Amino acid sequence: MLVIHTIADIRMRLRGVNGIALVPTMGNLHHGHLDLVRIARQRGQFVVVSIFVNPLQFGINEDFFKYPRTLDQDCKLLEGCGADLVFAPSESDMYPQPQQVKVALPPIANELCGTFRPGHFSGAATIVLKLFNIIQPEIAVFGKKDYQQYYLMRQMSEQLNLPVKIVGAETVRAPDGLALSSRNQYLKDEERTEAAFLYQMLTGVRQAILNGEKDLGWLQGQGLDALVSRGWRAEYVEIRSQGNLEKSRMEEKNLVILAAAWLGKTRLIDNLEVFLDGGSA
Amino acid sequence: MLVIHTIADIRMRLRGVNGIALVPTMGNLHHGHLDLVRIARQRGQFVVVSIFVNPLQFGINEDFFKYPRTLDQDCKLLEGCGADLVFAPSESDMYPQPQQVKVALPPIANELCGTFRPGHFSGAATIVLKLFNIIQPEIAVFGKKDYQQYYLMRQMSEQLNLPVKIVGAETVRAPDGLALSSRNQYLKDEERTEAAFLYQMLTGVRQAILNGEKDLGWLQGQGLDALVSRGWRAEYVEIRSQGNLEKSRMEEKNLVILAAAWLGKTRLIDNLEVFLDGGSA
Repeated sequence: MLVIHTIADIRMRLRGVNGIALVPTMGNLHHGHLDLVRIARQRGQFVVVSIFVNPLQFGINEDFFKYPRTLDQDCKLLEGCGADLVFAPSESDMYPQPQQVKVALPPIANELCGTFRPGHFSGAATIVLKLFNIIQPEIAVFGKKDYQQYYLMRQMSEQLNLPVKIVGAETVRAPDGLALSSRNQYLKDEERTEAAFLYQMLTGVRQAILNGEKDLGWLQGQGLDALVSRGWRAEYVEIRSQGNLEKSRMEEKNLVILAAAWLGKTRLIDNLEVFLDGGSA
Repeated sequence: MLVIHTIADIRMRLRGVNGIALVPTMGNLHHGHLDLVRIARQRGQFVVVSIFVNPLQFGINEDFFKYPRTLDQDCKLLEGCGADLVFAPSESDMYPQPQQVKVALPPIANELCGTFRPGHFSGAATIVLKLFNIIQPEIAVFGKKDYQQYYLMRQMSEQLNLPVKIVGAETVRAPDGLALSSRNQYLKDEERTEAAFLYQMLTGVRQAILNGEKDLGWLQGQGLDALVSRGWRAEYVEIRSQGNLEKSRMEEKNLVILAAAWLGKTRLIDNLEVFLDGGSA
């Protein structure tokens, strides 16, 4: 497995390589990431994993500086998973000048997580577009744990006519249901135990919908209250349409429940799809 | 020469084609465009000319509906100039949905023409990025007559790491100096005669700079006044740095004088580079 650190080197190495599947990450890899690599391996002929903690998608008071950077450990994990190449560029190579050309996204990018992280999705879309232009993959794999990001990447690919197929991967969870995330390691022991409640709340809301509850606004409020009553600082619990992430109307069959909440100093997000038409859950 | 009208068809036709040089146009071709095609022919192995009047770069009160559409005539001209393929897609193919993913540009996109045409450059950059993603050229040729656009396309290519070299072509002028433009045909006879004054004004300002005039603000005012006194509705006359289009400081050697002004109902733009270091003028 090759590890490449500069744009010039990777462009040279990938010249003439077809069927590239890209897994863009910020490193500090866990089993969720490795599942993305497995999917990339199945669908592409040459698997590139990018590892770059992207300052453009962090807010001014967010955890950019403390975000865990574990390149050596990440490379060891990737060796065993069928990655062909790791691209770990420096910040000065990716942003030699202040980034002033960016991807402007649809209004939905300012809802849900976008309400609380202004500019986050534009920053994420911009680095992904840069990586696409450098690596020129045919396929890129994103985790559905970051559901809004996954949606916006599909929108970007479609609306900019990118020659890249965006593939979504199901969320990988710990035995107690907590969605795997690099940020889970910020949690103190007792917080880690409580963290599983976010998933429990989502499954409860899903069950209520499946049981026929029609008042989605009320259900959202119930989910939010449940978190707050247990000491979480909840940002949102929203039931949206899978198709466009808009507020869902009752006639819609494919919903997604999305939530973001803080446990102590750690912000966690999660989501759960609901299929009312008998599709796969 | 092939003429292709859909994204699906051109993707299929260009699969495996290397060395593509693209000339993006809005059609109604004149000798300035043909010069871009000539440059593309010299530098690429396969020349694609796109013809698409892009609604996204027209303001609400601009000339989108009356902009001349002359595809048959354009194709005849291109046959003789070495174009290999004309891509003339429909609006519904390029914008099947309202375009909500766009290119956000540096602040300079809101100065000069951007002051008077809000959103214009973002719309132009967005269609060019879409065309790049569809056609995947190695080279794209832009006229320096649209100097700010040419600058912003280079910025976009650089900051988004596009694998496309942006090539600039010198402005082609009528014998009296008027820069060729599809919009020149809007001019009435007496306006067409007067139109050459825009270039004369620019050459006058350039001569003053070359003669040692240091007060660029005063010179700009002189240029503006000259237009206004002859009945033009002038938008701006600006002396900027070639390197970043910022307001130039006297120590800079490579300047560009840019102007936009209305003659009756027709908006004309033009520019002239000034090299104070003895470079080519």
